[in-house]
Amino acid sequence: MTDPRLADLAARVAGLRLLTELADLIHYGRDWTRRWGPAPLAVALPSTIAEVQATVRWANERGVAIVPSGGRTGLSGGAVAARGELVLSLERMNRVLGFDPTDRLLEVEAGITLQAVHEVARGHGLLYPVDFAARGSCTIGGNVATNAGGIRVVRYGTTREWIAGLTVVAGNGELLELNRGLVKNSSGYDLRQLMVGSEGTLGVVVSAQLELTDPPPPAQTMLLALPHMDALMKVFGLFRAQLRLQAFEFFTDVALRYVLAHGAQRALDADQPFYVVAEYDATEECDQQVALLVFEDGVREGWIADGVIAQSEAQAAALWRLREGLTESLAPRQPYKNDIALRISAMPAFLHEMQALLAHEYPRMEVVWFGHVGDGNLHINVLPPEDMEQAAFLAECERVTRLLADTLRRHGGSISAEHGIGLVKRPYLDSTRSAAEIALMRGVRGVFDPHGILNPGKLFD
Amino acid sequence: MTDPRLADLAARVAGLRLLTELADLIHYGRDWTRRWGPAPLAVALPSTIAEVQATVRWANERGVAIVPSGGRTGLSGGAVAARGELVLSLERMNRVLGFDPTDRLLEVEAGITLQAVHEVARGHGLLYPVDFAARGSCTIGGNVATNAGGIRVVRYGTTREWIAGLTVVAGNGELLELNRGLVKNSSGYDLRQLMVGSEGTLGVVVSAQLELTDPPPPAQTMLLALPHMDALMKVFGLFRAQLRLQAFEFFTDVALRYVLAHGAQRALDADQPFYVVAEYDATEECDQQVALLVFEDGVREGWIADGVIAQSEAQAAALWRLREGLTESLAPRQPYKNDIALRISAMPAFLHEMQALLAHEYPRMEVVWFGHVGDGNLHINVLPPEDMEQAAFLAECERVTRLLADTLRRHGGSISAEHGIGLVKRPYLDSTRSAAEIALMRGVRGVFDPHGILNPGKLFD
Repeated sequence: MTDPRLADLAARVAGLRLLTELADLIHYGRDWTRRWGPAPLAVALPSTIAEVQATVRWANERGVAIVPSGGRTGLSGGAVAARGELVLSLERMNRVLGFDPTDRLLEVEAGITLQAVHEVARGHGLLYPVDFAARGSCTIGGNVATNAGGIRVVRYGTTREWIAGLTVVAGNGELLELNRGLVKNSSGYDLRQLMVGSEGTLGVVVSAQLELTDPPPPAQTMLLALPHMDALMKVFGLFRAQLRLQAFEFFTDVALRYVLAHGAQRALDADQPFYVVAEYDATEECDQQVALLVFEDGVREGWIADGVIAQSEAQAAALWRLREGLTESLAPRQPYKNDIALRISAMPAFLHEMQALLAHEYPRMEVVWFGHVGDGNLHINVLPPEDMEQAAFLAECERVTRLLADTLRRHGGSISAEHGIGLVKRPYLDSTRSAAEIALMRGVRGVFDPHGILNPGKLFD
Repeated sequence: MTDPRLADLAARVAGLRLLTELADLIHYGRDWTRRWGPAPLAVALPSTIAEVQATVRWANERGVAIVPSGGRTGLSGGAVAARGELVLSLERMNRVLGFDPTDRLLEVEAGITLQAVHEVARGHGLLYPVDFAARGSCTIGGNVATNAGGIRVVRYGTTREWIAGLTVVAGNGELLELNRGLVKNSSGYDLRQLMVGSEGTLGVVVSAQLELTDPPPPAQTMLLALPHMDALMKVFGLFRAQLRLQAFEFFTDVALRYVLAHGAQRALDADQPFYVVAEYDATEECDQQVALLVFEDGVREGWIADGVIAQSEAQAAALWRLREGLTESLAPRQPYKNDIALRISAMPAFLHEMQALLAHEYPRMEVVWFGHVGDGNLHINVLPPEDMEQAAFLAECERVTRLLADTLRRHGGSISAEHGIGLVKRPYLDSTRSAAEIALMRGVRGVFDPHGILNPGKLFD
């Protein structure tokens, strides 16, 4: 605590927990990306809104940059502190603040994990429907920051749709209570929605009012093997038309190989280039009959080569593991990741162009892709060859990402579907947002954070 | 066209239709409020985006204020032009631009009416679910400007949730294509959501991509008569727990009197202080049995005094007319309107305070209220006594609205649920949004509209 700025912070905010040990700086200074060496000034662990507010005010006065920090499961470097910033971790602010059964609103502090929210909702007989593999570590504050999506978007939408209110300390130090849980509120700009997806550049989310909903009806889980890429969108169209989808996820044969090597269980003998995990309402026997008919239709059309329907919850979980274990199974290889989105209608043409582009530009790399067909969201993971230096690998991936970004632009897509821009995708933001939009965003940022202390360098300059 | 600024506009924007006749100035210079004398400089009726953009640029250079204008069915004065503004009417830009069945996106110009959108959606076998009585006149652009709600919010949410993309000419003259129909897009601030509800102060919406959904399942419509105010929330709780509501609307006995006098048909003999029109899914016979049981539960509890279930579409329409004809039946009396929202859980306590307040403060006025229980939205209509001058009446209503706003603030409510702030509610904005929020909104407005040409004086200074 020899830094006079930190001594000043400690003196001003009595009781604020501050960490400066090297191990802590490393732990809190990085997210799931591993491209930047963590180098924060210190780590602050506030336990009250007042402490957050005082810290933000101190940062404004002392000109210290702040990196708001949740579970640091991000994949875009949005929570990286590599330039002497103060990490402001919300992890101690992880309480449930209240539940109202009439409004069906669950109020939580920002540092609570997604999984804890799921459990509390379930305890009230309800559902918080945003869900994805990092649920055990990621936090609601981080979910808000990136407008997290995941595996249920085809049915329930993204985080944005479940946020009924946000309490935020803005970059200028003001405490904002945005929307306060109202269903209808046409009283000026919806700053709550502006905050969702702003990646910690406008304010620090300290608590959220989450809307809960009815639990989903009983579901059936099906694994499908598809003989070619065009079948993917065809089968999606078929299933969406006849069944009430809860999820429709796909991955490639290469992806399957990794997840099987990582301990998942093979569920089909067939070796096909594409696989789908589909989940749909199966309230009545009739739903299951329809699903079988739809499956048979797909087989008859030549779009489905093989499939299996889970006969138990354990088997459903095993099928899901094939999809959900992917990110973890690839992690040891430190893949370079793209997370792109298109309109569903643009997918077929884009997929062909993308496949050709990746094959041509990455002759030496293994490319693993998977994603959420129903949302038009693809995750591309490029694995470094063993004999390639990291810097050369990254340079190569960035060169190709530029080409990919140009292709996306032509197809009206986005360079970030759900991971956010952070540091990783900042160079490509202009493929998705126009210069005029970026100028307006810069202006808005200046309004909320006039001294530029919140996550500087992230999203855009 | 003697005004040199108009001559300049006409010269610059060849083909722009401009109206300057007094009748046109009156027609286009006001909305459904009648408190301000219309006095626009002129009316511009562009037919292309280029014309809108050129007009906004001209306005920036010449310092002329613009009032964006849709169907002018607004009730807050947001589309009033009383101070020499140029009315920019989107009424000629009312085309359907495209429909994509895979994305289920309907792209329309801003001037299309809500009803036309309903019809086009129906033609594609789908539903655009935002709906309310002004559907035949109001436009999508205006719906976006106020984040229109209406009678189906309890099931489908507000306009905000159905806007997949917006094309906007910002106040600075830049053309923005916001979100472009993507389901997932975490690439910086969601300026599309910022635009929704901004009442024409940030940009002129020129087209929108609307998400469509499955048509609702067959529904049953029920009219209920309730013996006292507390029964309202009780019956709502009962119905919501057991049925899938599509709408849950209420009105008072005084409201019923007006709509009956206006030609609607009496449906129940009972004379009770409160009435509800409920609509719920009735796909199977079982749903209808449940509805009957729920009704009987309500009767047994003493919360329902009488009721009727529509036996035909014609009868359902007749029941709906009791609710939907209200605004029109009151219009000749030129009521003063409040449009307030609360969390549903706050309603019971608030309703008692509100009823006492209105009874005490409006001893000489008739007060008619109705609204959307499921969204926590109440519409209060105060009718002027025949012998009271308009100015005195307004002054009285504004005095009481201040008290109402303070009550709302204590209960965490909003002074505008779905009508917007406009001119009418501007004095009370501070009851719903904090000084810090208003300062941020002012800053954001300055970013989008640096010369202050878009709807100046509306929303806030």
